[in-house]
Amino acid sequence: MINRVAVLMRPSEIVLEERSVPEPGPREVLVEVSAVGVCGSDVHYYEHGRIGSRVVRAPLVLGHESAGRVAAVGEAVTGHAVGDRVTLEPGVPCGRCRECRGGRYNLCPHVVFFGTPPVDGAFAGFVTIHEDFAFALPDSLSDEAGALMEPLSVGIWACRKAGVSAGDRVLVTGAGPIGLLAMQVALAFGATQVEVSDVSEPRLELARRTGATRTLPAGADEPGEADVLIECSGSGAALMAGVRALRPAGTAVVVGMGPGETAEIPLALLQTREIWLTGTFRYANTYPTAIALAAGGRVDLDAIVTGHYRLEDTERALRAGLEDPANVKAVVHP
Amino acid sequence: MINRVAVLMRPSEIVLEERSVPEPGPREVLVEVSAVGVCGSDVHYYEHGRIGSRVVRAPLVLGHESAGRVAAVGEAVTGHAVGDRVTLEPGVPCGRCRECRGGRYNLCPHVVFFGTPPVDGAFAGFVTIHEDFAFALPDSLSDEAGALMEPLSVGIWACRKAGVSAGDRVLVTGAGPIGLLAMQVALAFGATQVEVSDVSEPRLELARRTGATRTLPAGADEPGEADVLIECSGSGAALMAGVRALRPAGTAVVVGMGPGETAEIPLALLQTREIWLTGTFRYANTYPTAIALAAGGRVDLDAIVTGHYRLEDTERALRAGLEDPANVKAVVHP
Amino acid sequence: MINRVAVLMRPSEIVLEERSVPEPGPREVLVEVSAVGVCGSDVHYYEHGRIGSRVVRAPLVLGHESAGRVAAVGEAVTGHAVGDRVTLEPGVPCGRCRECRGGRYNLCPHVVFFGTPPVDGAFAGFVTIHEDFAFALPDSLSDEAGALMEPLSVGIWACRKAGVSAGDRVLVTGAGPIGLLAMQVALAFGATQVEVSDVSEPRLELARRTGATRTLPAGADEPGEADVLIECSGSGAALMAGVRALRPAGTAVVVGMGPGETAEIPLALLQTREIWLTGTFRYANTYPTAIALAAGGRVDLDAIVTGHYRLEDTERALRAGLEDPANVKAVVHP
Amino acid sequence: MINRVAVLMRPSEIVLEERSVPEPGPREVLVEVSAVGVCGSDVHYYEHGRIGSRVVRAPLVLGHESAGRVAAVGEAVTGHAVGDRVTLEPGVPCGRCRECRGGRYNLCPHVVFFGTPPVDGAFAGFVTIHEDFAFALPDSLSDEAGALMEPLSVGIWACRKAGVSAGDRVLVTGAGPIGLLAMQVALAFGATQVEVSDVSEPRLELARRTGATRTLPAGADEPGEADVLIECSGSGAALMAGVRALRPAGTAVVVGMGPGETAEIPLALLQTREIWLTGTFRYANTYPTAIALAAGGRVDLDAIVTGHYRLEDTERALRAGLEDPANVKAVVHP
Repeated sequence: MINRVAVLMRPSEIVLEERSVPEPGPREVLVEVSAVGVCGSDVHYYEHGRIGSRVVRAPLVLGHESAGRVAAVGEAVTGHAVGDRVTLEPGVPCGRCRECRGGRYNLCPHVVFFGTPPVDGAFAGFVTIHEDFAFALPDSLSDEAGALMEPLSVGIWACRKAGVSAGDRVLVTGAGPIGLLAMQVALAFGATQVEVSDVSEPRLELARRTGATRTLPAGADEPGEADVLIECSGSGAALMAGVRALRPAGTAVVVGMGPGETAEIPLALLQTREIWLTGTFRYANTYPTAIALAAGGRVDLDAIVTGHYRLEDTERALRAGLEDPANVKAVVHP
Repeated sequence: MINRVAVLMRPSEIVLEERSVPEPGPREVLVEVSAVGVCGSDVHYYEHGRIGSRVVRAPLVLGHESAGRVAAVGEAVTGHAVGDRVTLEPGVPCGRCRECRGGRYNLCPHVVFFGTPPVDGAFAGFVTIHEDFAFALPDSLSDEAGALMEPLSVGIWACRKAGVSAGDRVLVTGAGPIGLLAMQVALAFGATQVEVSDVSEPRLELARRTGATRTLPAGADEPGEADVLIECSGSGAALMAGVRALRPAGTAVVVGMGPGETAEIPLALLQTREIWLTGTFRYANTYPTAIALAAGGRVDLDAIVTGHYRLEDTERALRAGLEDPANVKAVVHP
Repeated sequence: MINRVAVLMRPSEIVLEERSVPEPGPREVLVEVSAVGVCGSDVHYYEHGRIGSRVVRAPLVLGHESAGRVAAVGEAVTGHAVGDRVTLEPGVPCGRCRECRGGRYNLCPHVVFFGTPPVDGAFAGFVTIHEDFAFALPDSLSDEAGALMEPLSVGIWACRKAGVSAGDRVLVTGAGPIGLLAMQVALAFGATQVEVSDVSEPRLELARRTGATRTLPAGADEPGEADVLIECSGSGAALMAGVRALRPAGTAVVVGMGPGETAEIPLALLQTREIWLTGTFRYANTYPTAIALAAGGRVDLDAIVTGHYRLEDTERALRAGLEDPANVKAVVHP
Repeated sequence: MINRVAVLMRPSEIVLEERSVPEPGPREVLVEVSAVGVCGSDVHYYEHGRIGSRVVRAPLVLGHESAGRVAAVGEAVTGHAVGDRVTLEPGVPCGRCRECRGGRYNLCPHVVFFGTPPVDGAFAGFVTIHEDFAFALPDSLSDEAGALMEPLSVGIWACRKAGVSAGDRVLVTGAGPIGLLAMQVALAFGATQVEVSDVSEPRLELARRTGATRTLPAGADEPGEADVLIECSGSGAALMAGVRALRPAGTAVVVGMGPGETAEIPLALLQTREIWLTGTFRYANTYPTAIALAAGGRVDLDAIVTGHYRLEDTERALRAGLEDPANVKAVVHP
């Protein structure tokens, strides 16, 4: 067997390579990858060769939103069998450090995460992963849905941090894949008013089709009072306006990465209204929830898939969103 | 105008009386009642003349699940106008004591609560209430739905106490009106597995029709592992079995009142699994959520209404559930 | 009896007036004031005639940190008797609105708060207040300590918001009265590392004397890693440096009011470390805790009192801190 | 080098053996044990050969409260060096399962825990442990204090579960080593009223000496209203009375193991007061806090040590508490 992988050689250059199929360790599974979503961070590495202090210094396989089928199992694996369909949580933390012990394993400094230098990712025929980070994918769900458990997890994590609950009014700023999924998740958490803002009308149209109770052209209209802001645009103006829309004791969760290290916030208002502000970094303990929501029909992952690509077209998949914001989510099928 | 009221004279005797229409205080509204649900506690007062230490010592108007139309407003009222449809939160707390200040106003020892001795309730043509405890009822919702915001609140409060969130697995023991609504609320909070147990097959059938993912004849089948138990039957056996079904660190919320002061629990298991157990007493801060869930179609209140009665038939309404457990929720229309 | 009051006529002009003694309402107590602390907000009103959108439009009695003795009680008062020593929680909320019902009564838009336009405060011989907002002052505590339950409450609220618990490492930036008390409170909550920064060496000296485990000249030294930041200086630089000192998942609580409406924060860091940021506005449910901590010797309120003044010297008391930062807390004795 | 160990051969029979010194794994440290506390569970295994479903089926070394000095390190160890004084967290969880990922690693079903069948413990000259479960012991603390970080952790965990905070009123039922330490911890968390009940006057005397604000002969006096109950006696009567002493919305944490699988609780009261009840199983994320509290002088561990024994006298150490309840905590020095 041969393991075909799409390798980022340098910014804006992806090359297809053939490698040997990796051997699973004692508690690892070997997974034949069937679908990999393209994430904004993949695109950022592709364009710029870095995200902040994380620099691609050697050829790197990108891709961390993946699903597939178990092709082999290590000798001590008990949770999966060859042939099982699985979705992969792409970061394996150390399990021992202060953050891991505290249940905040997304903040583990020793995490090994797909497609993040220097760890290869899932734009590949095969990958290996610790069995506990492969989750059974119900038959009712597509491979694409399996891959999209990862961005769905980002939305779940944001809603958990924000404490979204039944009857809440949520404002989502930014209708990219993360914003669109955070919006669906907010509805699944019971929110009854979910407003979404963006600069792209096709994205707002998709938001309406998937459940937004109102959409707003970014910067144009006033959002209604909200219990929760989920900022997914990376825009400083959206953050300022979003926090101002919050009720007293409301919560703002910043998911989108802005261009700079710092940002301005309406601090006096945050103080007099005792608003809570935080950000999210990946997610923890979300996959079982993600699968349950998708399998139960509470979220529709296929609805945001706007393009399918072969592994040899990974570069086109990476460029799709750059060329047209209506290309929300590209999926590569190795 | 005349205020017709159904008065509990002594256990098992309801008499229709004519009284003068009450005057609203400065911040009160006068409400012409259009629908009043019959609650198990109304039935208990009707049968036994007391609930624990609360004893009916004088003729008492029962009824605390009510909706109606504003007929007059006090001079300082700003939130409502004559003609508004409203649903009434039936307990007005003092707003000053330790419990009220702490946001636990349901535990206020000074609360004035409809249909609880010695405070008259809503089986009446007219009632008055502080304007902040009357909530606007959207046109899309029926009078019955307005009345049932009260038991819906009980379900919301139970789910909040339990911290029900998206993807959770919830076991509801007891499929009376509270259990059936708690089940719907759990679904609205995002639970994806909601199992319901009861001794009555017609009630389980109603549970299935309104969304239960599985129903169990009480005591017969093993429930699946659950994150949350909501005990609504008052049965000690259900509590024991329900707690045993909980995962480590799960939560049990006891809503149903059992026959005695004490109960047995599987304490060793609760300790080794670090399970949380609590009970609920009424609710706090639930009405806006209740209305939002009903208006947004997340819960179906009309589905559990099984009988309609005129005010002169209040006694028949009170007896309906005693005669057949399939009579889940009777509504009186004064 | 005559009620002598110190009235702010216009910025920088305080005039002593004689007024009639107020009558307590049915549930109010009349309190003969024995000690009133000078707060930075009093000084700000004195100097500028406004704080943000709150403008002094008519002669105003300042002062909201007060203690005294009950001189008369309204007809329905049950909790206090004439002669009782009491400390006064200076803001009486409505008890009915969304914020009050939610236990966040400090955010009540209808609150009546001493010394905040247009409500007169406690630089006065006598004041009235709802009996539930007067708290019994143990004999072991001084009048000054009674007055300082108010700024102590600010510190308690900050530590509660931050979730300070045993063994925590806390950084307090700013060693004015609030910072110094927040520091003592952090120790009382069990924090074992409490570092304090300020520009004033005398204030840092006072911090060390009252328990700081380390003091830092503002901007000069690096603070150690902290679980919690309590920002009490109003300085943007202190906020930036303080947030950078936080561990992953740490919490920053901003108490000090800065000069502008907005502020810059290290947002990317806040995101990758999932830091929580909030601000405080007054406090809720703190007085019983404040009294217990002071009575139990867990905090030393007298230690921060640096000056005593008669009512006719209220203006000097207001100017004390402006003239020398070593004047931490002035107390007026009407 | 020889590893002398005290082995439980069968109930009531401890034999001293010589074994080879274990080799540390790559990330393990070898620790020369200097102090081991005797826990009630050690005594229970010694007397009965089992605790519930955990049965001693082969010779077993007991002891899980231990401290010592690093004697050797595995090749990949980075956190400790030979000669370091350390205290040992005795349970090493898997780091991968649902409980571990959720930060509840004390509930890990795969944990390897000292002195729990079939895992040998620390009544031994040497033990090995993963380096992340050995914590540096400050020079200011004794070996005995190092060993007692373990029962101190039990107290910390109980106070965390109960949410003990500054100004709280805590009732501790049972003044054995766990109750006495939970009491000290409650004070360190800021509790200002801490009442302790027990049947043994010498134990109550020790409670008073170490900070109890009031002691009560078990069953004789009424405790004051409490915010928190920490039940450490295993007595059903203490649990009943303790829960009845709680304020509305108070919390009961059951630490002591009773004789049976089930227990009776005042359920109706728990419901009408919305009391929370839970139990604790070991602890998680407590060692850094334990060390900080002891090093900062917030708790006094040496105060509860009532006997010192050589390894060859382990059996006498195990019997000490059985013979006289005034023997609170025996420490073995291998």
